[in-house]
Amino acid sequence: MDVKQESLKKHFEWGGKIEIAVRTHIKDSHDLSLAYTPGVAEPCLAIEKKPELSYELTNRHNTVAVITDGTAILGLGDIGPEAGMPVMEGKCVLFKEFGGVDAIPLCLKTKDTDELIRTIYLLSGSFGGINLEDIASPRCFEIEKRLKELCDIPIFHDDQHGTAIVVASALLNALRVVKKKLEDVKIVINGAGSAGIAITRHLLSLGARNVILVDKCGIILEGGDNMNEAQAEMARLTNPQHISGNLADAMKGSDVFIGVSAPGVVSKEMVSSMASGACVFPMANPVPEIFPAEALEAGAAVVGSGRSDFDNQINNVLVFPGVFRGALDCRASDITQEMKIAATMAIAGLVTDAELAPNYILPKAFDKRIGPAVAKAVAKAARACGVARI
Amino acid sequence: MDVKQESLKKHFEWGGKIEIAVRTHIKDSHDLSLAYTPGVAEPCLAIEKKPELSYELTNRHNTVAVITDGTAILGLGDIGPEAGMPVMEGKCVLFKEFGGVDAIPLCLKTKDTDELIRTIYLLSGSFGGINLEDIASPRCFEIEKRLKELCDIPIFHDDQHGTAIVVASALLNALRVVKKKLEDVKIVINGAGSAGIAITRHLLSLGARNVILVDKCGIILEGGDNMNEAQAEMARLTNPQHISGNLADAMKGSDVFIGVSAPGVVSKEMVSSMASGACVFPMANPVPEIFPAEALEAGAAVVGSGRSDFDNQINNVLVFPGVFRGALDCRASDITQEMKIAATMAIAGLVTDAELAPNYILPKAFDKRIGPAVAKAVAKAARACGVARI
Repeated sequence: MDVKQESLKKHFEWGGKIEIAVRTHIKDSHDLSLAYTPGVAEPCLAIEKKPELSYELTNRHNTVAVITDGTAILGLGDIGPEAGMPVMEGKCVLFKEFGGVDAIPLCLKTKDTDELIRTIYLLSGSFGGINLEDIASPRCFEIEKRLKELCDIPIFHDDQHGTAIVVASALLNALRVVKKKLEDVKIVINGAGSAGIAITRHLLSLGARNVILVDKCGIILEGGDNMNEAQAEMARLTNPQHISGNLADAMKGSDVFIGVSAPGVVSKEMVSSMASGACVFPMANPVPEIFPAEALEAGAAVVGSGRSDFDNQINNVLVFPGVFRGALDCRASDITQEMKIAATMAIAGLVTDAELAPNYILPKAFDKRIGPAVAKAVAKAARACGVARI
Repeated sequence: MDVKQESLKKHFEWGGKIEIAVRTHIKDSHDLSLAYTPGVAEPCLAIEKKPELSYELTNRHNTVAVITDGTAILGLGDIGPEAGMPVMEGKCVLFKEFGGVDAIPLCLKTKDTDELIRTIYLLSGSFGGINLEDIASPRCFEIEKRLKELCDIPIFHDDQHGTAIVVASALLNALRVVKKKLEDVKIVINGAGSAGIAITRHLLSLGARNVILVDKCGIILEGGDNMNEAQAEMARLTNPQHISGNLADAMKGSDVFIGVSAPGVVSKEMVSSMASGACVFPMANPVPEIFPAEALEAGAAVVGSGRSDFDNQINNVLVFPGVFRGALDCRASDITQEMKIAATMAIAGLVTDAELAPNYILPKAFDKRIGPAVAKAVAKAARACGVARI
């Protein structure tokens, strides 16, 4: 049985991957009077007087909403909120297993940007953080930006920032392998959706200077046509040599290829045209831009993909449990760029010089050190940049 | 330490009364590929093709949202969404403990009726049912009515219907004790908010013919002033003898008093003025309209209250776990009047003739038979009235 059929069978068996557990059982009327009426009036009144006590008297301190509108579920596109729920529940399992975070999956029945923003804002008092998930680009940018302004809890669009952080960790270590510096390399990113744009921004903030972003219509270039606002901004920030052309043109002589695009769009010839010591991350999932074995045959020095069945899996499960664990631990009001950089460095730093190898640039997803290491670094950065509240 | 101080202390210790538990642990990359990417695509696509599979492939079949706007929390009034959370979490504990239902607490940061309706509708695809909680009257009536029209899952405002069901169960059994019939008795209900109006409607549907509803301004009478829409409807349906006056006037010669109003508003003299075999349910909480001992001294035959420290506690924890268990078990699209009547009869029926006594008209909240008995009766009624989907 292949993994998809096995997964479907398992989902029927599980009948849901998460459930509610109670921390206090109700065995007699005294228990009831403490957990519910009349005793519960007292913690309510305490929070009314001092709202931040909601973090101490309820589970808010450990609760994150995983929210989608169902418009960009996995690589499946707009399949609707109900059909997105298996992914959201899966995410909630990972939050708990790798970060100890209680995550609640919410799939909203609207695609209207303003309505999504308002709805999520109205929900925000019940949570310690909001993880936006699988919301289509470019709407996701405005939704995240406006929610960050409106809410006093961390807002994090994992498809953007989780991906950007883990790709950057992978790239920093791949560059350690090939002995190149981030500020010197020519990086081609294929796919100008939420992930591609977030990776671009993040690598620029880490010091990259020569990023070329490519989408279906070719290299993104200042003054180009048909760009959304985010892509137009990217055109200003990237491609300093104003190269035009298609993906093959962009890849010629480049040091790094990062694909967040579509199956099979990279040929062996395109990899062969890259500079020596090429780092190639074809991350389209489940079918990558080029299969790792082919990329290696074509001369790539380091290859990573989104898949768990090849070396160097680049998966944001390394990121979001620890990022939220850290943000919740210090009751952060926001997840800042400094915190994202700290998470990037923490993940990369878990691979020692002795361990580092072309087929080992990232810790494995099941490495139990990751969540705590990321959380610690993120909380430290939050305190340093003034968004921590405890 | 009194129960309120003990509850506050316990809430600090608990740091939240519920959490997320996972049904499938992630120990290796194969587990990850089944519960998350890439395997999870298959259940997503299955739901996209056949939306009702969301009840089999996710936890929707067992998940209820407990939603408030924080405007009528316990007897505390409008204390806001964050301060309402300890009550909502408590409710979720009871849902799990007594009904095996996974309930998610959501406190919304708006008091606008249209916005509440829209927000709850947008959330409804993630749940198998919606329990509305502690939303102020009269807004709660419109919110429930419109959501029942919009949504294809059960919508249940517990402050109305949970209370109405358990009061009716108590009254049916109290009338067995005093050997009177529901259709013959004169019933005075004090308090014309959500609970009082729902109790009135429910008793009328069960066959009561002489209900007198009283609020702060006196007996509700057709053509009276300052009534909201629901109260005006009540004026048409109740008080067949067009009695006017205050609560004391209403109670004279009555058989039943039901209080969902305010502390201490009933005197011993008022109880003494009732007919012989009087049933008195002063349910204001924590301080009742009259204390049970006083009501008994004044000649009441059967007394019940909302409190756990007196005989005959009338608490909707007997109702909502079983009602939702039953509705979820048959995947009901609605909770109909027939289902509410079935719940009422099921609860009352758990007290045998041999057990029935003036101080034992309802099973204890911790009686493990209640949830299953209510669930079975509710599912049967749902199937009979055509709202069950399995």
